[in-house]
Amino acid sequence: MQVSSGKTEEVAAEPTPVRRLRADQARRVADLLRHQVHDGAFDAGLPGEQQLAAEFDASRNTVREALTLLRDEGLIERAPKIGTRVATRKYDHGLDALLGLQETFKGHGTVRNEVRAAMHVAAPAAVARRLHLAPGERVVYLERLRYLADLPLSLDLTYLVPDIGTELLGHDLEHTDIFVLLEQISGQSLGHADLALEAVPADPHTASTLDVPGGAPLLMLERLTRLDDDRPVDLEYIRMRGDRITMRGSLTRSTPEWKVR
Amino acid sequence: MQVSSGKTEEVAAEPTPVRRLRADQARRVADLLRHQVHDGAFDAGLPGEQQLAAEFDASRNTVREALTLLRDEGLIERAPKIGTRVATRKYDHGLDALLGLQETFKGHGTVRNEVRAAMHVAAPAAVARRLHLAPGERVVYLERLRYLADLPLSLDLTYLVPDIGTELLGHDLEHTDIFVLLEQISGQSLGHADLALEAVPADPHTASTLDVPGGAPLLMLERLTRLDDDRPVDLEYIRMRGDRITMRGSLTRSTPEWKVR
Repeated sequence: MQVSSGKTEEVAAEPTPVRRLRADQARRVADLLRHQVHDGAFDAGLPGEQQLAAEFDASRNTVREALTLLRDEGLIERAPKIGTRVATRKYDHGLDALLGLQETFKGHGTVRNEVRAAMHVAAPAAVARRLHLAPGERVVYLERLRYLADLPLSLDLTYLVPDIGTELLGHDLEHTDIFVLLEQISGQSLGHADLALEAVPADPHTASTLDVPGGAPLLMLERLTRLDDDRPVDLEYIRMRGDRITMRGSLTRSTPEWKVR
Repeated sequence: MQVSSGKTEEVAAEPTPVRRLRADQARRVADLLRHQVHDGAFDAGLPGEQQLAAEFDASRNTVREALTLLRDEGLIERAPKIGTRVATRKYDHGLDALLGLQETFKGHGTVRNEVRAAMHVAAPAAVARRLHLAPGERVVYLERLRYLADLPLSLDLTYLVPDIGTELLGHDLEHTDIFVLLEQISGQSLGHADLALEAVPADPHTASTLDVPGGAPLLMLERLTRLDDDRPVDLEYIRMRGDRITMRGSLTRSTPEWKVR
């Protein structure tokens, strides 16, 4: 681990900023710019280096390094004559309510699912336990590569309880969210879902499937969804392209009552 | 983008699993094993390849490939005589309630903060806007490298409103969560926070600071925290090591009332 030396003089309650490592400053500037890119502040292009340097009270070299960081994340593009512009706006996916992709991105482009697998498999013990089934009981397994606006967005592996899952196989899985079908088939609305979010590197095969470089950061979402009567019906492992999705939500200091169960 | 051919025969409501690409199967097995690793099911070591092959109804080659995926993520280690064992258990960080690191990991190891910067800076417009300040107004800027159990966990960049921030500079920032100090100084409890979560690659300088390989996936959390009276006081940009943290929470189908504001 690298700990930069000679920096202890900064750790002071003194209101005087001192010169800091350029890499540290570039990171600070990049974070603020990233936020503005997401917010759409730069949809007409980014300001020039000089203006950004003034805005962030930083040198032009620092600004240039910050822009390089964002370019390496795939967020912006830089070209000699054209200047700096946003390469890809990320899409916001909600952490506040349980919504399918299609419901979430209504109006932002078409969601299309390439169904790579849709079949019955014997439930491994880990799946059976979570779906409250006997080990080896047959479950429905789906594998879908999901596109938004014709670019790969996520690769979703789904295990469904046999009764609902089997009926679901007869529906249009290419154009319909699983969540919508679950409610339609069960006649119940969905209840709670437990989720776990991680950042993982794309293995070579996933990378080529999602059309990203090997090792590219993915948001990995594991989600167990229950019907309103609390029965778990849907266990999913979702790999989202890190350069295309931001998860957004809000938190309170204390756990709201409906979450204490 | 690679789309495997000859797979359409799987897309059928037939209850007969057909042979699938090994890479697809390995991913499926890896996801289920990852979950069990997180759950602590394998703390005494992973079962042998043959047992896993039976469990997942897969070939030994598929199991071996799944284990390679998890090794490449840094989750497990494999050695000839020792077998396969968990390399690092990830820590769970909550998406349900607003908690500081130290509050979250009470009992899991000591949180220590290396304070890399603690100073006043002129608020860039993007910061001023979110903290409801005038552009250029002085804010308190903190940079902390946070350790859990003596390993780097996250690099946190923090902007605080001047009144509370200036008083906070006089406290023990090495061993105290900002959240706890905010409540102590303001005499209010914290209210809501807005957050955005992304997966981003570690730039070279961040990578060496967090002691991970360049390009390693990080969970990037942007969080704006408000006091109970709704005043925004704390804007943070937090880079967490992807191999050390899982964010966990729960969602409901409809947005709970306290979130509709």
